[in-house]
Amino acid sequence: MADRGQMSIGMNILGLGGHQAAWRVGEVSATAYLDVEYYTNIARISERGTLDAIFLADGPALQENVGANPAGRLEPTILLTAIAVATTHIGVIATCSTTYNDPFNLARRLASLDHVSKGRAAWNIVTNAGDLAAQNFGLTGAPLHVDRYGRADEFLEVATALWDSWEDDAILADARAGRFADPTRVHPIDHDGAQFKVRGPLNLPRSPQGRPVLFQAGSSEGGKTVGARWADAIFTTQTTLEDGRAFYDEMKGRARRFGRNPAALKIMPGLSTVIGSTEAEAQRRCDELDGYLGEDGLLAQIAQRIGLSPDELDPDAELPWHRIGPVESFERGSHGFLEAQLNLARREGLTVRQLSRRIRSGHRLIVGTPEQVADTLEEWFLAGAADGFNIMPDMFPSGAEIFVDHVVPELRRRGVFRHEYRGATLRDHLGLDRPVSRFAEPQLEAVS
Amino acid sequence: MADRGQMSIGMNILGLGGHQAAWRVGEVSATAYLDVEYYTNIARISERGTLDAIFLADGPALQENVGANPAGRLEPTILLTAIAVATTHIGVIATCSTTYNDPFNLARRLASLDHVSKGRAAWNIVTNAGDLAAQNFGLTGAPLHVDRYGRADEFLEVATALWDSWEDDAILADARAGRFADPTRVHPIDHDGAQFKVRGPLNLPRSPQGRPVLFQAGSSEGGKTVGARWADAIFTTQTTLEDGRAFYDEMKGRARRFGRNPAALKIMPGLSTVIGSTEAEAQRRCDELDGYLGEDGLLAQIAQRIGLSPDELDPDAELPWHRIGPVESFERGSHGFLEAQLNLARREGLTVRQLSRRIRSGHRLIVGTPEQVADTLEEWFLAGAADGFNIMPDMFPSGAEIFVDHVVPELRRRGVFRHEYRGATLRDHLGLDRPVSRFAEPQLEAVS
Repeated sequence: MADRGQMSIGMNILGLGGHQAAWRVGEVSATAYLDVEYYTNIARISERGTLDAIFLADGPALQENVGANPAGRLEPTILLTAIAVATTHIGVIATCSTTYNDPFNLARRLASLDHVSKGRAAWNIVTNAGDLAAQNFGLTGAPLHVDRYGRADEFLEVATALWDSWEDDAILADARAGRFADPTRVHPIDHDGAQFKVRGPLNLPRSPQGRPVLFQAGSSEGGKTVGARWADAIFTTQTTLEDGRAFYDEMKGRARRFGRNPAALKIMPGLSTVIGSTEAEAQRRCDELDGYLGEDGLLAQIAQRIGLSPDELDPDAELPWHRIGPVESFERGSHGFLEAQLNLARREGLTVRQLSRRIRSGHRLIVGTPEQVADTLEEWFLAGAADGFNIMPDMFPSGAEIFVDHVVPELRRRGVFRHEYRGATLRDHLGLDRPVSRFAEPQLEAVS
Repeated sequence: MADRGQMSIGMNILGLGGHQAAWRVGEVSATAYLDVEYYTNIARISERGTLDAIFLADGPALQENVGANPAGRLEPTILLTAIAVATTHIGVIATCSTTYNDPFNLARRLASLDHVSKGRAAWNIVTNAGDLAAQNFGLTGAPLHVDRYGRADEFLEVATALWDSWEDDAILADARAGRFADPTRVHPIDHDGAQFKVRGPLNLPRSPQGRPVLFQAGSSEGGKTVGARWADAIFTTQTTLEDGRAFYDEMKGRARRFGRNPAALKIMPGLSTVIGSTEAEAQRRCDELDGYLGEDGLLAQIAQRIGLSPDELDPDAELPWHRIGPVESFERGSHGFLEAQLNLARREGLTVRQLSRRIRSGHRLIVGTPEQVADTLEEWFLAGAADGFNIMPDMFPSGAEIFVDHVVPELRRRGVFRHEYRGATLRDHLGLDRPVSRFAEPQLEAVS
């Protein structure tokens, strides 16, 4: 087996925990998800474990049932700025929509975060499928899938051009002569496309990483195309090793077809964790959390992901396959989560009830000991199904503490995870090169 | 004279200083305006002086001559988040455009900043006159003045409704019963207007101040209407006490006509400062800075504000009044700065050269001792021309240090400025009530 180096690990802070019932346990106050200290605490724990980054999901609409669960969230670029200044090494990944943002403003905000964090910013590119989001932006329903990804592609063209608009050596900073920058190295972008018309340049000099690291999280056809063309890393949802390897190979192939080095596109599946000192302890922790949801709550999670009513599911039968159309035609939610759930059920012939115990947040779930978690991370990594992982602990802060204090040392012992940060930027952690501005002239050594 | 209480003071961090040549002096590196530490240092100095807030101007385009001056800037909501977490009391005021933002996203970002800062966030509402900004957002030129302010007014309707959409007591946080919030106290806003269609509710519970404090900075007719209707405070530009009092009375009257308590609308003119231990020392400091601009640079500032070429100005004559149309028809820049400059020149019969020495950033300028600065602040405050001031020191950090260490003690001695913070929020500092959500039912005691 080729030397696979070391894996990357992101910490996904999803509200009070990846398990929907985390808030019921009362580990922190039910409104802690509105307190910046709650997040900086988890970020510092994660940084103690030399994790690559903190990840925040997002969408511009109130999706949750406010009666039953903590609802709403702090805007990620704001919250991650606060996290970045409270930490020194860990990266910060903000989910922001290409459908409901404007490229000039978003490119500038993310570049500002890259400056403020001194090179630790990343953007997780999403297009937002839901109608509720659309209705906060003058529309009656979400644009069609194809239109959302068409816009995303052009959005990335504009944003990357803006990030390149100041060359790295544009600034002279010659106070004595009164020459601040070389104007020939600050470029209008003059983008004139189907969706956007943007003159540029960006009103902010080039940021420490050249541009923020780009993550992409959509597993639909459109999402995969945008990801393979533009992203540095893909967040994904496969639940079986077989699917994980297939997706990994597919995405590396797609990157190659865009003329890219496939090693520069990192594949990072999500992993939900419920960890205990023993398997029995982990299972008890999971049962306690599940107990708050009850049978109905667990089945509702399955139904919601398919877009059916819970009444349409028989807990003791398989999924109603005849009621489930092709994933490609699904316009009401995430293709990635739907496909991951369907594949798991189909491959293992699970009943709805069995399926509801194998999946919670939508991502692959492991309930087990630190060694078992390390085993599965190592297995996927060495088998070429992942370059890294986005970890979703069941609840915070304990789930993050257990991961950092018990899984990370195990991964270090096995040589698949770093003992210390080697560089200062998120690109350094992920092993990604710093991009050169498209406007930069070839270097002298290349010419001569 | 009625008891005027105490004044409010904001610190306007404009790049490396309010004087265009600040960067030439080399007090900090020419690229310090890209470093978060540069700003947190000034914010902590300002907090030591119990100032009300840090203010950041902004516009979504590269306006500056990059060859000659530090250009571009960090996005204010991001930078002020970093400043807020590095301080404990001082407010943070972000300038954001209603023309080039979307109400749902901006309302949420500002509410997030209010949460993260624990009630210290404010928004300075601007509409952006320039064509360069327009060309970053698909337009060839800025929308007409009347259209920009029409949009601003509706933008505020939407934003304030979103900030009200979660009532204060909506959250139950009953983990035992599994009841997070009372859904009847979380409201869609169902806004359907000429410019915006927004369903709501905001995907974030109500923020500590109810809503961010609203500043408004436009002195045109449209700006004054929006300010009188919506703002908690007005940033303004009058250069003479006479104009200051007239504007103050006009705005309080406008607020009254909107059915508001005029005391709840604070008037805060800008003041550029160049301070020395003696008048001569202050003048030397100013001359040093002016020396970098030279005669041509100083005249260019005057010409630019009128929208003429410097060639069209005779330094030894008055402004070419026949070339200057009515302020109301001026579409190429700020009405407030233009009017302030024209009034100063007209009232005092100044030549262009004299005028260029009396104004720099566009705001009223004082070159003098700490006592003289305290005199003019006290005079305007007691004469009913100002409730507070937005201070623009010539250069940072020294200009902020001198103000805090020498002017603030003088103001305290005179009883017109606080010795310590009395409350936790920016509303507390400014003496503003916390707004009640429009959706809140009348309190029981009011009904019975």
